[in-house]
Amino acid sequence: MSREILTVDGLQYSNWSREIFQQMREGGVDAVHATLVYHETCRETLYRMGEWNRRFEAFDDLIMHVREPGDIERARQAGKTGIFFGAQNCSPIEDDIDLVAIMRDLGLMIMQLTYNNQSLLACGCYEAEDSGITRFGRQVIAEMNRVGMVIDMSHSAERSTLEAIELSRRPVIISHANPSSFHPAKRNKSDKVLKAIAECDGLLGFSAYPFHLRNGPDCTLDDYCDMIADTADLMGIEHIAIGTDLCQDQPTSILEWMRNGRWSKQMDYGEGSQANAGWPKPLPWLRDNRDFPNLIKGLGKRGFDDESIERIMGRNWVELLERAAVPEGR
Amino acid sequence: MSREILTVDGLQYSNWSREIFQQMREGGVDAVHATLVYHETCRETLYRMGEWNRRFEAFDDLIMHVREPGDIERARQAGKTGIFFGAQNCSPIEDDIDLVAIMRDLGLMIMQLTYNNQSLLACGCYEAEDSGITRFGRQVIAEMNRVGMVIDMSHSAERSTLEAIELSRRPVIISHANPSSFHPAKRNKSDKVLKAIAECDGLLGFSAYPFHLRNGPDCTLDDYCDMIADTADLMGIEHIAIGTDLCQDQPTSILEWMRNGRWSKQMDYGEGSQANAGWPKPLPWLRDNRDFPNLIKGLGKRGFDDESIERIMGRNWVELLERAAVPEGR
Repeated sequence: MSREILTVDGLQYSNWSREIFQQMREGGVDAVHATLVYHETCRETLYRMGEWNRRFEAFDDLIMHVREPGDIERARQAGKTGIFFGAQNCSPIEDDIDLVAIMRDLGLMIMQLTYNNQSLLACGCYEAEDSGITRFGRQVIAEMNRVGMVIDMSHSAERSTLEAIELSRRPVIISHANPSSFHPAKRNKSDKVLKAIAECDGLLGFSAYPFHLRNGPDCTLDDYCDMIADTADLMGIEHIAIGTDLCQDQPTSILEWMRNGRWSKQMDYGEGSQANAGWPKPLPWLRDNRDFPNLIKGLGKRGFDDESIERIMGRNWVELLERAAVPEGR
Repeated sequence: MSREILTVDGLQYSNWSREIFQQMREGGVDAVHATLVYHETCRETLYRMGEWNRRFEAFDDLIMHVREPGDIERARQAGKTGIFFGAQNCSPIEDDIDLVAIMRDLGLMIMQLTYNNQSLLACGCYEAEDSGITRFGRQVIAEMNRVGMVIDMSHSAERSTLEAIELSRRPVIISHANPSSFHPAKRNKSDKVLKAIAECDGLLGFSAYPFHLRNGPDCTLDDYCDMIADTADLMGIEHIAIGTDLCQDQPTSILEWMRNGRWSKQMDYGEGSQANAGWPKPLPWLRDNRDFPNLIKGLGKRGFDDESIERIMGRNWVELLERAAVPEGR
């Protein structure tokens, strides 16, 4: 049964390899939102796309590029895992509104307006002051709406998030975070934000990154599924999904790049600390892509019916992309 | 009758405006190969694409983007002029083979391997020595074949051109030039090259740029059509077409950019000279896009039948793109 449940993971950033793609197949993962870049410029983003094009050629037996929502079902039929691109920051568009359409053309389906810090568009969740959506940000939101690039506020601050939802004509998402009520991390979201995401017909992907979880790497599957059940009550079953934030086989240098980009001369430890500077210990029930069936079992044990489980595990992601990731007027 | 003849111009680089697009409609021009860049880097090429995306929005009543050969017929049915992109040099891919697929994804259907000078790929027609296709050039030819980006040798030197034809698994074109036998300009092509182009099932687009014509701006339509008839005998009626090289409303600064890019500190006059440094005087029978019916009439007067006229005026371009501008294996 579990292998037939449509499974979409709403965020991963791994040191991609044949082994990882094989694990996706073993875990029954039909599609993955793969982070393409954190702080890369336009030109650097094209390097990352070039690397992915080589992977799509080399691992053609396991993965395929998802450029529009229907490609996920095509991947599933072909027995492959569909990969759709997202940027965790707005650096790929630099200061150029025309790059929104160009990046969407190249398959960038999702973009965060900020990554922890103030960006040209909005404010990140680590800044002391959040002055909301900028002048450029308003233009970019309208252009993302037009071309069908999904607005992701996972790493944004609260006022910016609420304003983005207000300004956007289409659903806004939080691809990977958890409710602050479950665990009060800077990256987790208030009930106010979560309700606004639900009201705009958006989506929350539950993170499995230990820093976002009660008891960190010791968070139990039962606790995780309780969090999902509570959030289903708050947001509705159509607006919740998975966004594990799995980062497999990555060296510490990548964690440092995420946290520091080119903006900091001193080491910034992000959600960690000098004493706890490395990658968190993985969850025993979600070590890698092979463990997605554990989640399905956990949700069943928690009392979700099959239809709800399929919604949470993948259907909601597909429907969100159908609502928000196709050009307007199509 | 003339308005029903499929008309494709295989090269223009104008100071694009509503007026010019309206002239295309008035002249019955169904599609135009528009030069996107001369010496622009990857990032600069995206600026040019951004400008075109704005034009496709602003002039949606007159033009549409041609991304695959079938779009030309779609444009025709919609009563619009289809615009397909080409680069006159390989600068958009810089030193990065992965940019071939990325640029093709963005609609770059045609790329010259060189523009007058030595490039990273091949030798241009103004160099004293032509050492043929480079190591990188061989890889790029194979990649252009794979993704369906047409190899254009209009500004290349002879040995490089013959080697490119030899190495390419798909047809190679000369989008805009004339036979040297008609007028011995550096940019025009020997019978040897023209025969090789025909043998690889490629295409020659006849230039109407005065520097490529006998008697320059005083070349008569009769002489031009005689040249076409002679070349039809040499290459076959399937391998000849139009590539006017119309450059309308452009300031001299653009001519200087074409000729000098960023490579020369002294002024290079290209096909002109210090005494004749500006744009050539236009042909009286091809002042702008409204004059394409003159060409159709001239070909009729020269004795071509309607089917041959339609081949020369447009059908051969569409069929060439069908042979060479779709991904391999599709």
